Amino acid sequence: MSKKSSDSKIIYVGRKPPMDYVLAIVTAFSGAEIKEATVKARGRSITTAVDAVEITRRKFVKEMIVDTVVIGTEEMPPREGESNSRNISTIEITLKRS
Amino acid sequence: MSKKSSDSKIIYVGRKPPMDYVLAIVTAFSGAEIKEATVKARGRSITTAVDAVEITRRKFVKEMIVDTVVIGTEEMPPREGESNSRNISTIEITLKRS
Repeated sequence: MSKKSSDSKIIYVGRKPPMDYVLAIVTAFSGAEIKEATVKARGRSITTAVDAVEITRRKFVKEMIVDTVVIGTEEMPPREGESNSRNISTIEITLKRS
Repeated sequence: MSKKSSDSKIIYVGRKPPMDYVLAIVTAFSGAEIKEATVKARGRSITTAVDAVEITRRKFVKEMIVDTVVIGTEEMPPREGESNSRNISTIEITLKRS
């Protein structure tokens, strides 16, 4: 995902409530030049990412469509006091204007 | 999703640990006639579904690929004592042999 030009935007979803990310997605699509946005999340935040996209699509940006959804795995460094690296699931949801 | 013939299988992911669903997916793909399986989850179980698919794909069924991932929203009846129906996010991950 090297595409970071002005017509694309990446929104990283973490542990805040879904509405925080809804606002981020709505803001991304409020710029007329934005044709695409990608919502990324890891681990437990995956559900929040799906919630945020669904709330935005249904209630706020009706012309937005889900283009692709890609799931994957990322290797994370070990937690303090642990020796093994951890694998964590990821999701990337690419959104476009319909 | 009306396809329920013998060459397809649906796995519903709930609140058990991911390995329970890994076992279900591995079992589904152990039948030679199975060409496709769909993993479905709602709400907080979405992360478990992604985890189960990723663990299966990386460690157990290397020839398995993610064909499509579809996210959506389902309307659920109100909880007891509440008057409004709730919207819950859903995911459907369709898996195939590569």
